[in-house]
Amino acid sequence: MEPRITLVTLGVANLDRARTFYEEVLGWTPAPQSVGDVVFFQTGGVVLALYPRNLLAEDARLADAGGTGFAGFTLAHNVRTHEEVDRVLDDVARRGGRILKPAEDAPWGGRTGYFADPDGVAWEVAWNPGLPLDAEGIPRLGAEPKA
Amino acid sequence: MEPRITLVTLGVANLDRARTFYEEVLGWTPAPQSVGDVVFFQTGGVVLALYPRNLLAEDARLADAGGTGFAGFTLAHNVRTHEEVDRVLDDVARRGGRILKPAEDAPWGGRTGYFADPDGVAWEVAWNPGLPLDAEGIPRLGAEPKA
Repeated sequence: MEPRITLVTLGVANLDRARTFYEEVLGWTPAPQSVGDVVFFQTGGVVLALYPRNLLAEDARLADAGGTGFAGFTLAHNVRTHEEVDRVLDDVARRGGRILKPAEDAPWGGRTGYFADPDGVAWEVAWNPGLPLDAEGIPRLGAEPKA
Repeated sequence: MEPRITLVTLGVANLDRARTFYEEVLGWTPAPQSVGDVVFFQTGGVVLALYPRNLLAEDARLADAGGTGFAGFTLAHNVRTHEEVDRVLDDVARRGGRILKPAEDAPWGGRTGYFADPDGVAWEVAWNPGLPLDAEGIPRLGAEPKA
């Protein structure tokens, strides 16, 4: 598993309130990929995503008991192929990592799974054909996905 | 404030256990800057740091009451000059952001302060002469600091 963090996702109690803070207090502009319940910001070498806390906990298969169990955030490790999601998760499991959610095809067209680090931090391993990575593994939300 | 996340810091209950996981389960190599109570990994466009949870809470001036108040992690926004730390924090405060820790010179030779987002996520604004940023604002732990 290459050393890479591609998104920092914050599970927020109120999406409108959080979006307003990042837009109006920090002055950041949401990326055009921000639709529905998710807001994306291109932040240098990593993408910040805002997502409702209850939906994020559900997606990572974690119980949200007011701060214990689920810490309110996940980290994402995007890979370049559909197959690599399974390979990375299998490798993590074989080395003793705890799988939260086995790899599965996602409704948004990619493939995704989750594992937990020892403190319960949820790491998503994902292939997303709409999120191209450059040669350094940096996600480029501004780039056009390959046809 | 430019859109940028430079470090993801995980406040961990047991540093040895966490470091072992990232080294042995994920196969990542700590950066040479990893000394004392902190472990750094260059991860694509963002740096991952492991730091004891109690020390991280203390540094961000947050109470760690088992998951409430402090979520167990912070995000860092590094800037290019000493003066920019104050400018960014002043700007955040003026726009209604909550300052957790006003800008102050740090024992490691830089300048740092913290603000909180609406969900209590602690954002550190820091100038660190030992952590050069490239033209894109991507931290490069492998690069030599300017003499």
